[in-house]
Amino acid sequence: MLRQSLSSLEISTKGEGFDDITGAINGLIAASGLQLGSATIASQHTSCSLTINENADPRVLVDLAAFLRALVPPEGVRPISGQGERRAWVHDDEGPDDMPAHIRTALTCTSLVLPFQSGRLLLGTWQAVYVWEHRARPHRRRFSLHLLGE
Amino acid sequence: MLRQSLSSLEISTKGEGFDDITGAINGLIAASGLQLGSATIASQHTSCSLTINENADPRVLVDLAAFLRALVPPEGVRPISGQGERRAWVHDDEGPDDMPAHIRTALTCTSLVLPFQSGRLLLGTWQAVYVWEHRARPHRRRFSLHLLGE
Amino acid sequence: MLRQSLSSLEISTKGEGFDDITGAINGLIAASGLQLGSATIASQHTSCSLTINENADPRVLVDLAAFLRALVPPEGVRPISGQGERRAWVHDDEGPDDMPAHIRTALTCTSLVLPFQSGRLLLGTWQAVYVWEHRARPHRRRFSLHLLGE
Repeated sequence: MLRQSLSSLEISTKGEGFDDITGAINGLIAASGLQLGSATIASQHTSCSLTINENADPRVLVDLAAFLRALVPPEGVRPISGQGERRAWVHDDEGPDDMPAHIRTALTCTSLVLPFQSGRLLLGTWQAVYVWEHRARPHRRRFSLHLLGE
Repeated sequence: MLRQSLSSLEISTKGEGFDDITGAINGLIAASGLQLGSATIASQHTSCSLTINENADPRVLVDLAAFLRALVPPEGVRPISGQGERRAWVHDDEGPDDMPAHIRTALTCTSLVLPFQSGRLLLGTWQAVYVWEHRARPHRRRFSLHLLGE
Repeated sequence: MLRQSLSSLEISTKGEGFDDITGAINGLIAASGLQLGSATIASQHTSCSLTINENADPRVLVDLAAFLRALVPPEGVRPISGQGERRAWVHDDEGPDDMPAHIRTALTCTSLVLPFQSGRLLLGTWQAVYVWEHRARPHRRRFSLHLLGE
């Protein structure tokens, strides 16, 4: 018989970078007693995101972060020509890393949905679920986990 | 006992920009009578998207739109070197704002899944759900809302 | 009465490009016997993605691929100034197309959730679901499909 379970997960990030939460999600699935179903992980923030990427070579995360930092830098938006000076962000009350964090969040994911089987996320061999902190400083981040299954 | 509900939501956009649909989604959740569960909002279009971002300072949306406009401009794709002239889009039957709208949609979200609790989306304090119109002119947009819960 | 169904889908990509899997997903929904509900399609890879875009003019996909190729090229990350030489990817063991594939995956979607009705995905007239292969060479790709409905 199908049933649902709602729980939450909090983590402390260390500033810009990645935290692997695959194990924590699997722990909450195990605690629910559900074996087969679908898991929704949703961030309650607008300056960090959830992403799935490689769990093996940590240099993947190095390049991924370097790319997004160059694409959405603290200096502001680039001119359409691609040349000349950037125009500073107009939303800058919380510092130069804040607006880039909102944009990086919009370009990635705020929620993820993944099937689970035998009480664990059904991921590929090389996949992990990461919290991607986009702010420069450490933040306390809260995620909700909704499970539907049996 | 778990049950589901499927409804739809239509809005008229005012051209490129954002419409906050958080209240409309909460209204449909309330109408369903469901208290706890998971909500899927899906766009039926390929030139507007759904996004979650800050609901407080409207300048966040100004910078967000300016960024995506510069990243995917009407002028076409930039050369890999980052310098020299852009090559015009090959798909241009519907005008210069059409192909950028398809790309901006691919870089953001066509569907969102969010848990709800006490009959309302379980969002963070600063989060709102927006329809992000990428076309220059106003459009009538249709979204489906699927609820699963009890 | 609500029930769930978990199945999988494998396809062979032909290298960088798009494969329309809308029909294959509808086939699996039909096989499940479910009429109304929600479908989660999840990729088990970190170098291809799932995306929804136009099913009519194939030039949309040409421009979309050209854009992402220029945005995340094999040559590496561009300097923040937008000028000068790119810095090569540090993760390059599997060739120059590998790291761009991971980044292109992070900028698009690894899983999609869509409602279905009358035994078919509830898509807009111009929408199709594509596997977007980001690696240069053909790959065998596996997706899980989780259905919840009745």
